[in-house]
Amino acid sequence: MFRRILIANRGEIAMRLIRCMKEMGIESVLAYSAEDADSLPVQMATESVCIGPAAASASYLNQAALVEAAKAASCDAVHPGYGFLSENADFAALVRENGMAFIGPDPETIRLMGDKEKARELMKKNGIPTVPGSDGLVDTADEAVRVADSLGYPVLVKASAGGGGRGMRRASCRDEVMAAYQDARAEAQAAFGDSSVYLEKEIVRPHHIEFQILADRYGGIVQLGERDCSMQRRRQKMIEEAPAGCLTPRLRAKMAKAAITAAKASGYVSAGTVEFVVDQQGNFYFIEMNTRIQVEHCVTEMETGIDLVREQIRIAAGMKLSVRQTDIHPAGHTIEVRINAEDPQQAFAPSPGTISFAHFPGGGGVRIESAVYSGSRVSPFYDSMIAKLIVHAPGRQEAIHKMRAALEELTIEGVRTNINYLYLMMFQRDYLLGQFDTSFIEENTEKILKWEKACRKKAGLTG
Amino acid sequence: MFRRILIANRGEIAMRLIRCMKEMGIESVLAYSAEDADSLPVQMATESVCIGPAAASASYLNQAALVEAAKAASCDAVHPGYGFLSENADFAALVRENGMAFIGPDPETIRLMGDKEKARELMKKNGIPTVPGSDGLVDTADEAVRVADSLGYPVLVKASAGGGGRGMRRASCRDEVMAAYQDARAEAQAAFGDSSVYLEKEIVRPHHIEFQILADRYGGIVQLGERDCSMQRRRQKMIEEAPAGCLTPRLRAKMAKAAITAAKASGYVSAGTVEFVVDQQGNFYFIEMNTRIQVEHCVTEMETGIDLVREQIRIAAGMKLSVRQTDIHPAGHTIEVRINAEDPQQAFAPSPGTISFAHFPGGGGVRIESAVYSGSRVSPFYDSMIAKLIVHAPGRQEAIHKMRAALEELTIEGVRTNINYLYLMMFQRDYLLGQFDTSFIEENTEKILKWEKACRKKAGLTG
Repeated sequence: MFRRILIANRGEIAMRLIRCMKEMGIESVLAYSAEDADSLPVQMATESVCIGPAAASASYLNQAALVEAAKAASCDAVHPGYGFLSENADFAALVRENGMAFIGPDPETIRLMGDKEKARELMKKNGIPTVPGSDGLVDTADEAVRVADSLGYPVLVKASAGGGGRGMRRASCRDEVMAAYQDARAEAQAAFGDSSVYLEKEIVRPHHIEFQILADRYGGIVQLGERDCSMQRRRQKMIEEAPAGCLTPRLRAKMAKAAITAAKASGYVSAGTVEFVVDQQGNFYFIEMNTRIQVEHCVTEMETGIDLVREQIRIAAGMKLSVRQTDIHPAGHTIEVRINAEDPQQAFAPSPGTISFAHFPGGGGVRIESAVYSGSRVSPFYDSMIAKLIVHAPGRQEAIHKMRAALEELTIEGVRTNINYLYLMMFQRDYLLGQFDTSFIEENTEKILKWEKACRKKAGLTG
Repeated sequence: MFRRILIANRGEIAMRLIRCMKEMGIESVLAYSAEDADSLPVQMATESVCIGPAAASASYLNQAALVEAAKAASCDAVHPGYGFLSENADFAALVRENGMAFIGPDPETIRLMGDKEKARELMKKNGIPTVPGSDGLVDTADEAVRVADSLGYPVLVKASAGGGGRGMRRASCRDEVMAAYQDARAEAQAAFGDSSVYLEKEIVRPHHIEFQILADRYGGIVQLGERDCSMQRRRQKMIEEAPAGCLTPRLRAKMAKAAITAAKASGYVSAGTVEFVVDQQGNFYFIEMNTRIQVEHCVTEMETGIDLVREQIRIAAGMKLSVRQTDIHPAGHTIEVRINAEDPQQAFAPSPGTISFAHFPGGGGVRIESAVYSGSRVSPFYDSMIAKLIVHAPGRQEAIHKMRAALEELTIEGVRTNINYLYLMMFQRDYLLGQFDTSFIEENTEKILKWEKACRKKAGLTG
């Protein structure tokens, strides 16, 4: 087992990793930016090393500085968390070249799955349904129009190197294809330094369903069930849950099998997620594989009782999976909400500042993942997510009630947050009935914001 | 189901009850003393009613005021929590007479089990082993000597109305019996207004093992496994865990059966605990039944996934148990520690005051039960327990590591606490090996306090 691991991340996931390492008897070395010098992870890690100034490009994305810090601190492995360098194949390779383990899949797998078009091709070859689309990259606007016509509208033009909606454009008719093609290419070039794009038919009002995978170096591979991440705003997940009510047992089994096939086909090792969309008719399509631990991994942990980060570290250290498929029985219902320092009333603009007071709910079936404390700062330099609140209960109804109670108790003062927004979401009729898809949040946000405003006024609330 | 429940308690258990009621869609009416006006439960309950000044006798023990408050607020039930009036048969009866449900067993059961000698007799009649002792009450000092001689030394003289070590004296030889008898009587008279005592053989270095029971009004009765509460200081539990390493599966099954028999024999309805001691040879003896929800109930909740307070409320509302014995499978290992505002270095003297800063650990398998927040006050008027920290992990070793990590992160400033003391306990060799009994804490406290002092000095710690 590793003796010391460098954590190349910050915030709640850094805390998650530090806690896990403490529990495993592994020393944690936190690489932090000057901006984060007073953060909780800096205080909690075995050792902390400042690797650069606030700007992520100079710190959390600074590959050379991170590897130097890891070597100087005699680390034998690096954990990248999520975001930042977590899906950067070059970084994974660099860590390895410097004689340390990268806690994640092999660089080749990261590279393969990072190329969305190649990943699609691989899945098709292995009999996994993918969204109907172009046969590989589309190199001219004319070709884009031709392909779009044959797929039927609406279509999406997507950057091959893309993710999270960047480098993606929608065309609802032939007239829009040309502009969508050019805009997507330009954005992809700017964002990823790679302008290649492909076309996909847009699945209308789909569910976003993903399967969690764990695989070791010895052919051991298990799936830990699905997460429904359809509650998204502008492709940013906001609320995740498991199990997904839209899946029949038969469909769930088929998708789980496809997820295992996907992981096997890519020679996957480590924790990973196979993402699908499911249309209104119950057809499912592979969209991409995420080669990192995900923000929402705790949902699966609550369902299965399995510590995914622990498994990830064990796998990277060359150990076998500690669980077999027959040991995994997701139970009850789990809901996670992402607490962001943002102002829903100002188009969800980030709300950095000092948290003058923080109080988190406790009790059974309530899990908090956060690096926030009374007096901590929310930096304008990084993502606005400051906490995850996860609840587990025997059934969905009870989980929603538990989430309401927890959100009522959760108090963050000094910065604006989406707490009230999320709270009101827990009273939306269609959400309560489980009748939601990826368009739910866009369609309901205006209504909720009106209510939130009214509630604030009434209660004299400021958060 | 009830519409509104009066909570006749404070602190963490009041929060526990409020959260549960929120989840069940029941309104909570908190009866609080003037001293607790700024407490978190007052802020979180649906409604709060001041029922008297700080002194518990005038507020939390003020039966008339509580019943009046409940009626005035149109409550249909009263939950007493633990301590205070939770095992007061008269209060339970008074609540009933006023047309409300008492969330606990029937007054007759409380009264029967509150009479320790009668409870012993009942158990004997039902074939449950009790600690060898006098045949009923002992009315003279001469009889005490005679009985003690026949039992063999050491013996305990115990108040029939006693509990928690009050009204109890030890005699290690014939010469000590007379004084023990008279002292126990005097203390019992002063504490309980009842001087009757009985004698028991002292079980040397026993384990304290208790079984959690749930029973409804329709003959439904289940046991939810045991808790090992041997880690006690002066008969106050400090660390509780499950499962108990000292039980073989065979012994566990026998004791579980005895616990069910005990509950049936007393016509038990509600959540309850059957307490046993287990000697070094694996013999077990009934000591008493606690007719309330206990401080350490969360240990069982983490093991079984069953919400005991929810069941308690359902049962009181006339519903059937929502679980069958075959559904109950305690899993993994759970440890709970009680965080007290006290100074271990000053003979564990209470340390009331204002908590200037509070930070609780989060993460998977970590549960916090507390009413504390940054800025809250610890009153000198009530029990010094300010939080419970409960961890759950697949095995005991992992649970201990998780507890260490959680205690490292847990921060309470402004008052002294036993956090460091508990933390050091998690490194005691014999505790790690599971080799402990009820004398462990007394025997190891001096050593730990020395270490704690050294650690404080080294780290400049004040907490």
